Amino acid sequence: MSTPEVTTVVLDLDGTLVDSVYTHVLAWHAAFQDVGVEVPARRIHRLVGMGGDRLVAAAAGQATEQALGDEVRQRHPQHLDRLFGSITPTEGALDLLEAMRTRGLDVVLASSGDRDLTERLLDVLPGSRDLLGRVVTGSDAEQSKPSGELVEVALGTADRSRAVLVGDAVWDVQSAADAGIPCLGVLTGGLAEAELRDAGAHDVVADAATLARRLVETGSLLRS
Amino acid sequence: MSTPEVTTVVLDLDGTLVDSVYTHVLAWHAAFQDVGVEVPARRIHRLVGMGGDRLVAAAAGQATEQALGDEVRQRHPQHLDRLFGSITPTEGALDLLEAMRTRGLDVVLASSGDRDLTERLLDVLPGSRDLLGRVVTGSDAEQSKPSGELVEVALGTADRSRAVLVGDAVWDVQSAADAGIPCLGVLTGGLAEAELRDAGAHDVVADAATLARRLVETGSLLRS
Repeated sequence: MSTPEVTTVVLDLDGTLVDSVYTHVLAWHAAFQDVGVEVPARRIHRLVGMGGDRLVAAAAGQATEQALGDEVRQRHPQHLDRLFGSITPTEGALDLLEAMRTRGLDVVLASSGDRDLTERLLDVLPGSRDLLGRVVTGSDAEQSKPSGELVEVALGTADRSRAVLVGDAVWDVQSAADAGIPCLGVLTGGLAEAELRDAGAHDVVADAATLARRLVETGSLLRS
Repeated sequence: MSTPEVTTVVLDLDGTLVDSVYTHVLAWHAAFQDVGVEVPARRIHRLVGMGGDRLVAAAAGQATEQALGDEVRQRHPQHLDRLFGSITPTEGALDLLEAMRTRGLDVVLASSGDRDLTERLLDVLPGSRDLLGRVVTGSDAEQSKPSGELVEVALGTADRSRAVLVGDAVWDVQSAADAGIPCLGVLTGGLAEAELRDAGAHDVVADAATLARRLVETGSLLRS
């Protein structure tokens, strides 16, 4: 018995196609510092990938969210701008997009960030827009990850039984589960393999390069 | 049967007393970028805590070390300077130093960084110098972590059977083992608990605050 061949791939951006998670950690850390709230970098790291609308409360509690949430969210992009030059493609990101295009897969980018940030991050991957089918962003959904809404929007009318999500965060695994599809985890967001497996990842690989090689060599993104 | 009471504590600095690991990751990443070498942030994260003399080869291979190692090492402190403002105390760092001083423990700081960097990082922890016994740095040992030499220098004539190291990195666990003492792991360096346990940590706790509370409440750093 084999699993059905994947025809639709929902791709996370931050930490999966671009090496931006550590930059986000420092940007959020600095945004919290600005308003006098100390949040350990490690804790922020585990929260990157959920929507900014949820992150402040998750990192610093509901009282901080109510008093300072909007200010922290306003300061985060300023610090991200300052640190933006550190963001580079993850290993094999474009190879994966090309391999999926070559096989005729339906590839949808689904990023929690808003449309502006998503566009700026795609600029880090020259040529990526031509290789992607649709691009959906946090601006296209009411509920951010770990809700499956963004994944649902990304899937559209695609066959769920032949779809998979590729992402680096626990929130990717959860939003995939919420939308009823498996998640392939990549380690490029800096979590340990055990963290993604414990969250329920279908499989965990090092990076996009590994998935690109697997697709070229075996014809499938899923381990045979 | 109980383990002997701890009388000497060797303390790591980066990631243990100051929340600096994510800053180091971005600084090393930028230093590699400067010389045109792309190293994934995740990989650098797992190497922070070993000496800079070893890190370039471990991150990018021996050929890069030979061709560009010194240049990368020269650029790292420049980027660290730029990002230095993001470094803050870890939760409970000063509480732990005070609790250990109150109990009369022999506390030695042992940091892989050179003396200048160690001094700057101690400035992030006001009053810490008065609470520390000795301070040994990478400038005091030939071999950096994961070698146990720095830990050996830190221990001096202390009783090994009553000593423990507190650190956040796999290299701390290894250097403690190399020097024949157990390592208490903290999660503030951003590794997963499983990574520190798999490396052989005697125990893993969230942060210095947890160790401070344990010491005050139970009279021991080790779980009873």
